[in-house]
Amino acid sequence: MSIFPKTEYAARISKAQAMMAEAGLDAILLTTEPEVRYFTGYLTRFWESPCRPWFLVVPASGGPIAVIPSIGAELMAAHGVQDIRTWPAPQPDDEGISLLIDALAPFKRVGTPMGQQSSLRMPLADWSKLNAAHPITDDAGIVRRLRIVKSAAEIVQIKAACAIGDAAFANVPNFAKPGTALSQVYRDTQSACLQSGADWVPYLAGAADQGGYGDVISPASDKPLAAGDVLMLDTGLVRNGYFCDFDRNWSIGAPSAAVAKAHHDLFDATQAAFTATKPGATARDLWTAMADIVGATETGRLGHGLGMSLTEWPSLTAQDETVLETGMVLTLEPSVEIEPGKLMVCEENIVVTDNGADWLSTPVTRDIMVIE
Amino acid sequence: MSIFPKTEYAARISKAQAMMAEAGLDAILLTTEPEVRYFTGYLTRFWESPCRPWFLVVPASGGPIAVIPSIGAELMAAHGVQDIRTWPAPQPDDEGISLLIDALAPFKRVGTPMGQQSSLRMPLADWSKLNAAHPITDDAGIVRRLRIVKSAAEIVQIKAACAIGDAAFANVPNFAKPGTALSQVYRDTQSACLQSGADWVPYLAGAADQGGYGDVISPASDKPLAAGDVLMLDTGLVRNGYFCDFDRNWSIGAPSAAVAKAHHDLFDATQAAFTATKPGATARDLWTAMADIVGATETGRLGHGLGMSLTEWPSLTAQDETVLETGMVLTLEPSVEIEPGKLMVCEENIVVTDNGADWLSTPVTRDIMVIE
Repeated sequence: MSIFPKTEYAARISKAQAMMAEAGLDAILLTTEPEVRYFTGYLTRFWESPCRPWFLVVPASGGPIAVIPSIGAELMAAHGVQDIRTWPAPQPDDEGISLLIDALAPFKRVGTPMGQQSSLRMPLADWSKLNAAHPITDDAGIVRRLRIVKSAAEIVQIKAACAIGDAAFANVPNFAKPGTALSQVYRDTQSACLQSGADWVPYLAGAADQGGYGDVISPASDKPLAAGDVLMLDTGLVRNGYFCDFDRNWSIGAPSAAVAKAHHDLFDATQAAFTATKPGATARDLWTAMADIVGATETGRLGHGLGMSLTEWPSLTAQDETVLETGMVLTLEPSVEIEPGKLMVCEENIVVTDNGADWLSTPVTRDIMVIE
Repeated sequence: MSIFPKTEYAARISKAQAMMAEAGLDAILLTTEPEVRYFTGYLTRFWESPCRPWFLVVPASGGPIAVIPSIGAELMAAHGVQDIRTWPAPQPDDEGISLLIDALAPFKRVGTPMGQQSSLRMPLADWSKLNAAHPITDDAGIVRRLRIVKSAAEIVQIKAACAIGDAAFANVPNFAKPGTALSQVYRDTQSACLQSGADWVPYLAGAADQGGYGDVISPASDKPLAAGDVLMLDTGLVRNGYFCDFDRNWSIGAPSAAVAKAHHDLFDATQAAFTATKPGATARDLWTAMADIVGATETGRLGHGLGMSLTEWPSLTAQDETVLETGMVLTLEPSVEIEPGKLMVCEENIVVTDNGADWLSTPVTRDIMVIE
């Protein structure tokens, strides 16, 4: 049922428990999709519905306790969780809170992720009720420390997602023709991801504009591709619950000298960061390797962690001193300003190895790809 | 830029401000995607990245204040928001919190959604910092009360999403053949949604099993469709930021008498709920109309609100006394147990009108569809 053998989840729980002993915590409370899945394998798109909270308690010893809507009991049991306590959600008067308070009663110090990139997936009114009965503290960064380093089994999954992205991008020149609306290119790219093996496509962004683009987060317009455009597509597709996150650029017709050079700079920056990657280097070191080539300012991010979420810790910024370890999966994502308001962005996915790094995405060529 | 004219957002803010005056609130703080979009039109898939918080302050008078990562400033300005304050996220030492505290300083009583189906999209450590500087209270249900009733312009969008779902489902018999893996059917269904006009497909669930199914939330297996299966596909696709959420059932080969009857019961239950729908009826009334036919227990939900999220208030349960109003959009989602462990679920989308209800999805036929 789960994508990994039971030993994978047992190892995660065991590591968490060792860290909890060190931090003086008696249990960890989890409320978000990747956190619950990390410790159980519980995989479903049902989280898209915001109306039901889900809780997992990982105690300092013994197996996890799932406190969940009854609709999820059977699937959670199939993942090997033995202590499952359910309520018939939605039940506005008591949305699992009494059950959760009971489940936490045996544990004195309970932590939950409170730091950067964390969030609380339950109503604040219920969070207040819970804290009145049982004050919750920070998890001492345990979940971050665990998730930031991927196991060999996780790396296999992320690599498989990247291979699907490679195949989908290889297909883009077949449908992204001059005259095709960018909105249709977005639809076709998502279909290509699915038909290449993605389970779903939570993220697809991009841009197309003359000689570079200024905005990489807007929905696609219906404007047709035209000669002189640089088309960029950035996909966060999922296979077995693991993401890839990388992009590709194409010049529609022959690129201008400025676009050609920008792509060379992006390629060189990515290669420089790849070369700088090894255990013991910092996130900042990778940022510096890229910033030296693309001339980034100190406020930009040039890559990030990747795994069960589209973006994870660390951030490749001038401020992030996270020390790289074998098994961290990263995106290298330099951007270069061609002129004010005209950017280009390139992104690859890599994994830190004992001796350096391996590519997970198949690196792009130094020359920008051309669609005639 | 926004999908609605400025008057739509102005009307929403004006209604919120009238409710704030009544509730004694000086501002409302919003942190989640649909909440920020509701008041600004700000639409981007960038929210998939959990690493950056976004804040919107709607004051008791005047326009909204966006406190957001600098990467979003240009797009937010294009949506007509005039007061935009940015920081270069990610910036772990101060992830926008100082800016937010400054933005809230002029407002004495600040509320945020804390009730059912709400969540807090920011780290708890920052939430604590914020509350230490400026205690935040409940929004008195204002955001729920606003979002639960859709405007005419919103209903047009949801109806368009439903039409895309209709078109995609009409295409299913072309690819869901005996022998096709369910996982491939899921991929093809998502592609069909995209090619019928969806911008993306955040939710796709379903099942296929002999004479009915037991589990509607697991990822698809690679098991091929076989004669005697009932195939169910349930899609939450998005167009212009608005969802549809309905499902369809097909019998692979001729249905058994029990499956045929189950589909009749689901159809009859849906029709009964549709007939019971009118302003002044309650969510519970619709539940009762369906439960009387499908024999539901008091703990099940047989439908829910729908709009900018896949599931919204109210819940069609025995407990939900929400009084229906013109403009509420609902799913009718009865399920019937054929035998222990074998269910069938049917779902349609409707809107409450002055005199009753209108269909948004094109209702299914009483006889289950057959794929030979």
